[in-house]
Amino acid sequence: MQQLLDTIDIGTGGQGLYEVTDAVTGFVSRSGVSRGLLTAYVRHTSCSLLIQENADPDVQTDLMGFFRRLVPEGMDWLVHTTEGPDDMPAHVKASLTQTSIGIPVVDGQPVFGTWQGLYLFEHRRRPHRRQIVLHIIGE
Amino acid sequence: MQQLLDTIDIGTGGQGLYEVTDAVTGFVSRSGVSRGLLTAYVRHTSCSLLIQENADPDVQTDLMGFFRRLVPEGMDWLVHTTEGPDDMPAHVKASLTQTSIGIPVVDGQPVFGTWQGLYLFEHRRRPHRRQIVLHIIGE
Amino acid sequence: MQQLLDTIDIGTGGQGLYEVTDAVTGFVSRSGVSRGLLTAYVRHTSCSLLIQENADPDVQTDLMGFFRRLVPEGMDWLVHTTEGPDDMPAHVKASLTQTSIGIPVVDGQPVFGTWQGLYLFEHRRRPHRRQIVLHIIGE
Repeated sequence: MQQLLDTIDIGTGGQGLYEVTDAVTGFVSRSGVSRGLLTAYVRHTSCSLLIQENADPDVQTDLMGFFRRLVPEGMDWLVHTTEGPDDMPAHVKASLTQTSIGIPVVDGQPVFGTWQGLYLFEHRRRPHRRQIVLHIIGE
Repeated sequence: MQQLLDTIDIGTGGQGLYEVTDAVTGFVSRSGVSRGLLTAYVRHTSCSLLIQENADPDVQTDLMGFFRRLVPEGMDWLVHTTEGPDDMPAHVKASLTQTSIGIPVVDGQPVFGTWQGLYLFEHRRRPHRRQIVLHIIGE
Repeated sequence: MQQLLDTIDIGTGGQGLYEVTDAVTGFVSRSGVSRGLLTAYVRHTSCSLLIQENADPDVQTDLMGFFRRLVPEGMDWLVHTTEGPDDMPAHVKASLTQTSIGIPVVDGQPVFGTWQGLYLFEHRRRPHRRQIVLHIIGE
């Protein structure tokens, strides 16, 4: 049984879904692990992780549209407003999605379904540096 | 330390919660692992996983009712509409719930609480074949 | 490769975020594992787990405010009402957040980001005893 750890650094340029599927698949390949468990973990509270369809980009447009409507800027009862109008909505959106995702690995590949991609879901407007820690255990 | 992998195939017949607790518990039992970590992972983006109460079926009725109201069909700003009126709402509901759940295993059993069951949460109206990949590591 | 399991028992005194970061970090330290994977799992369906900002307490106030507005008590279409007006909203809030979170461990520490804390998110009004099972695997 063996393990490997790595960190993906991503520069984001505003709200949106940034696909990291290839980076994660490459990490699993480099690890030499054929069967095991991969974990992706994002070290922030105003962006998150999401597994969603990577075929039709309209799905991403609509996901963004839904979360923007569900958690709009300008909710007048917010008290945490010092970091900008997009900050507290970003924390809420992160709470509604994932900080951590575990994916089984078979034949040296994460078992993504045909239409699944792994995304960093950026909720802040301004550019940010984001870190996703990857861990794999298996053999 | 040892591992086992398996896949649960489920035929769904419309929107609803399909309990897989027994299938998962049976997998853990077959693995021979007494202490370890179980991961359940669903390979789709229009259904999801959920741990919820398995005592009173009214809880499932209300969960369905809430998600149907939060993410209704017919939102007129959607652009991804070619796969039917229930498709994009299904992606949103999957984003708000889980693709992957990790559960510690003690004494050869997942540590489900008294009232917890593991469900496949189907968000599409038509029948679908769904796959949940199970992974266990431990000893 | 080694494992350790433990359970955190928490008494909650109403709705709110109860930080367990130190308890989790202490468990990792006691385990002697330097590199590995930590899993936190809550054994209930009316409270949940959340990783969020632990710097400004206003963030917690606003998270509570958002979830209270998104899933209010008194939705008149609910059928599961026998356990009190806060019970079914609690199940919904738990469904929208996490039951289980996996966190890579490096240098004997979970890789929490600078602003990240791990919380038990209590959704019930009355005091409850809650259990979080911790599992670590690594070396």
